[in-house]
Amino acid sequence: MFSFDPIGYVKSPYPSTHGVPKGLGAKHQAEGILEILPKYEIGLTDIEGFSHLFVLWVFDRAEGYELIGNPPSDSRPHGVFATRSPRRPNPVGLTVVQLLRREGRLLHVRGVDMLDGTPILDIKPYLSSIPQDRLRRGWLADAESRASKEDRSR
Amino acid sequence: MFSFDPIGYVKSPYPSTHGVPKGLGAKHQAEGILEILPKYEIGLTDIEGFSHLFVLWVFDRAEGYELIGNPPSDSRPHGVFATRSPRRPNPVGLTVVQLLRREGRLLHVRGVDMLDGTPILDIKPYLSSIPQDRLRRGWLADAESRASKEDRSR
Repeated sequence: MFSFDPIGYVKSPYPSTHGVPKGLGAKHQAEGILEILPKYEIGLTDIEGFSHLFVLWVFDRAEGYELIGNPPSDSRPHGVFATRSPRRPNPVGLTVVQLLRREGRLLHVRGVDMLDGTPILDIKPYLSSIPQDRLRRGWLADAESRASKEDRSR
Repeated sequence: MFSFDPIGYVKSPYPSTHGVPKGLGAKHQAEGILEILPKYEIGLTDIEGFSHLFVLWVFDRAEGYELIGNPPSDSRPHGVFATRSPRRPNPVGLTVVQLLRREGRLLHVRGVDMLDGTPILDIKPYLSSIPQDRLRRGWLADAESRASKEDRSR
């Protein structure tokens, strides 16, 4: 058994699941704020260099789970691990958001599909797989650039 | 506080962190097995249609955390949320793996960077952002194809 405390909470335009776009072709363009607890703010250092972030969070209003269910994007049932259903054995959500700007311990992001007040467990940089022309990779790109220059100067 | 029980464990070629490729340009091509507990096997239904999966897991051998640290890919320190450091407030790892094949409750995958015995919290389908020509999206692609045919027949 592993126990986790939230590092912060999501401010989102969705008070309940009704408003969250679902199903095939659902677009998540909503803006929101990841509000990180003051004691963790220093951990956000350099995050503003990344264009996209992974957000790990808790489906805190989901109850129980079902191993086979009908996702909104299909009329056929599927195994829970082949879907993004909230009703999972461990109700952890994963969302890729675009980082619009950082304001201290507030991360303004686009692409939230979480409910307002959702507890955040972790934030990680998104390092690859977004098409290259839309991706910024912050300090990693800087570090690669420096390493590349060092290689060339050898 | 949220508590989670593993849904399974990773079989990986890495007994300790020494062997895991790290730093700039590190490639994770190692093969391993995601061994899901028998009681959750039915939740894997249809997962074999996906080429890639997100695996959420626990850095169960990491101790404590530091909000600013030096990742192996840079000589400069960065905030923990701008890195993939194991020493995070909530030590949850995220890995994208390629699904090679399913054998009952065993998922044979490529791209493991977890240690042998790592507890798995969740598995989710990777639905976008892998370049289209390398991505299979399993039942979702089927469902889209069916929905598209239904649209055209209207």
